[in-house]
Amino acid sequence: MSSPTVERNRRVVLRNYLAGRNTNGVFDVVDDAVPTANTGEFLIRIAAVSVDPAMRTWASQNPGRYEPVPLGSVLPAIAVGTVASSEHPDFAPGDCVVGRFGAQEWAVSDGSNVVRRFHNSPDPITLALGTLGHIGMTAIIGMVEVAHAQAGETVVVSSAAGAVGAVAGQVAKLLGCRTIGIAGGPKKVSLCRDVYGYDAAIDYQASADLTADLMLGAPEGFDVFFDNVGGRIFDAVMPLMNPMGRVAICGTIGVDSAAPGNGPRWERRILERQLTIRGFLESRFDCDRDSLFAQLTQWQRDGLITLHEDVRNGIESAPEAIDSVLNGNNFGKCLISVNQ
Amino acid sequence: MSSPTVERNRRVVLRNYLAGRNTNGVFDVVDDAVPTANTGEFLIRIAAVSVDPAMRTWASQNPGRYEPVPLGSVLPAIAVGTVASSEHPDFAPGDCVVGRFGAQEWAVSDGSNVVRRFHNSPDPITLALGTLGHIGMTAIIGMVEVAHAQAGETVVVSSAAGAVGAVAGQVAKLLGCRTIGIAGGPKKVSLCRDVYGYDAAIDYQASADLTADLMLGAPEGFDVFFDNVGGRIFDAVMPLMNPMGRVAICGTIGVDSAAPGNGPRWERRILERQLTIRGFLESRFDCDRDSLFAQLTQWQRDGLITLHEDVRNGIESAPEAIDSVLNGNNFGKCLISVNQ
Repeated sequence: MSSPTVERNRRVVLRNYLAGRNTNGVFDVVDDAVPTANTGEFLIRIAAVSVDPAMRTWASQNPGRYEPVPLGSVLPAIAVGTVASSEHPDFAPGDCVVGRFGAQEWAVSDGSNVVRRFHNSPDPITLALGTLGHIGMTAIIGMVEVAHAQAGETVVVSSAAGAVGAVAGQVAKLLGCRTIGIAGGPKKVSLCRDVYGYDAAIDYQASADLTADLMLGAPEGFDVFFDNVGGRIFDAVMPLMNPMGRVAICGTIGVDSAAPGNGPRWERRILERQLTIRGFLESRFDCDRDSLFAQLTQWQRDGLITLHEDVRNGIESAPEAIDSVLNGNNFGKCLISVNQ
Repeated sequence: MSSPTVERNRRVVLRNYLAGRNTNGVFDVVDDAVPTANTGEFLIRIAAVSVDPAMRTWASQNPGRYEPVPLGSVLPAIAVGTVASSEHPDFAPGDCVVGRFGAQEWAVSDGSNVVRRFHNSPDPITLALGTLGHIGMTAIIGMVEVAHAQAGETVVVSSAAGAVGAVAGQVAKLLGCRTIGIAGGPKKVSLCRDVYGYDAAIDYQASADLTADLMLGAPEGFDVFFDNVGGRIFDAVMPLMNPMGRVAICGTIGVDSAAPGNGPRWERRILERQLTIRGFLESRFDCDRDSLFAQLTQWQRDGLITLHEDVRNGIESAPEAIDSVLNGNNFGKCLISVNQ
């Protein structure tokens, strides 16, 4: 590792706000001095930056109830790295940390944006951005704590070959459920069937009537719907929810957040079938995270969870990587390897 | 009481299926012989028949996942009465029973449609169709078990002066919540404020912008929405739900069940605010009903719950009573006193 003092810090900054999924002209990669940790802070040498569908929100001018990120500042991102130097009593050089450090090569933290710290982990560091990070935690929280998937039930997952969906489907399978995946295109459908263990997978892009095709795959109906998409996918699944069914809304990549538009009214169906529709945000959901993380770790080390990694090299690959994730053109967990 | 043998059994039968809320030509009142209880059955002399918004579903050709009632048969209804004669080992003459006995003066039961039996109750018998019956149970199950209303939270109730809404609002108040009612017309709004104890009430019929008017009444937003209506009322409240808010869907009288139509997409809002939308049917909801019923009974006997009774006399008043309930033209709990 070179000395921080002679390194530069390349970072992805917002030139313009993202509208929809067109990333043209939205991101710049700029070159700054490596920042300095003051008292109570520490410097992180980042190893990998996670590329997530949530960047659509983080890069937008109307990110829900948050303040928008000022133009010219670093794109929010989850990243993993190693403490390079520290003026903080609780963090020491060599500590591995995961947190909201931004899409850049170096970051200074006061510890408040650290999500997890680990020492001498036998697992590859990039797992901290995937199965053993926010991806895995999102999947297991949604399937276990939000949707309450039970052995013997039938579970449908949208964006089933995406990072969260792929883990969610495997978690459901490990819980003893029958799993049906919805994915776009033949390669993703193959991944669902051959890699991620779904009992059946439907290509929504090739389906003229998704509800009918789902019925063929699961004539027993669905007890749980783990939805990463919303919109027309949501509408296609809802008629097939069994009485007392649970829908976990994890993502809405299929909904234009600036103009969600109209869709069928579901109030009456929700009433008649006693359905529960629940939205959740992994970082804010209140549950016993330690035991869920321990379960994920066990499954991972036992070789029971697979997640394809789509690794891009260098921070300059970020704009293209983000574009491919937001437009569904990548496979598995996308991350950017930096400082290698 | 006259002898059953010389009585007649007047009953409301379905001449045609109900479509929408126009009851013209839907119901006939016919005059049959009083039925006879065979072995394993008992005869009930009905005292009062409950008129409920759910009759819209029960009288329709497409009642969700039930079989439609055959034309010419008695309209399903919840009723209360006294066992007149019995060939059933568990029911004795004089027993008071509430159940799904139909809109008629006499009914034979094998016990399977009995919801509750009571002996020497100090409460007026009609309470068994109101606060101490399915109305009260719907209100307390929805507010406590479905919406998990907590002291200090703000609760909004639609159809707030209707039977279920009125009790739901009072239950929330007794739990320590601030309560906002949505009702149609000045008389219902007055009932909300002056009789049912709402902290504020909004007349949706007089409101040009219901969301804006609700914001004035509850600038802190809503933690719980107990919805009896759906449709445009649902749409007006949803933007005001606080993070982690819960929506209990109890009724959808504002939705055309044959053609629910379209409305705004809420998936993204449900996600961002981590909302829970849950439909429930009182008769099918799994919970500790005995303790909830005991709580209602205590509140009722302590004079803490008020529910106006709209009593119609004679089974021949049923068609008009049903019409007024389905079209929001009655006040409080509508029931038909029979055999008096």
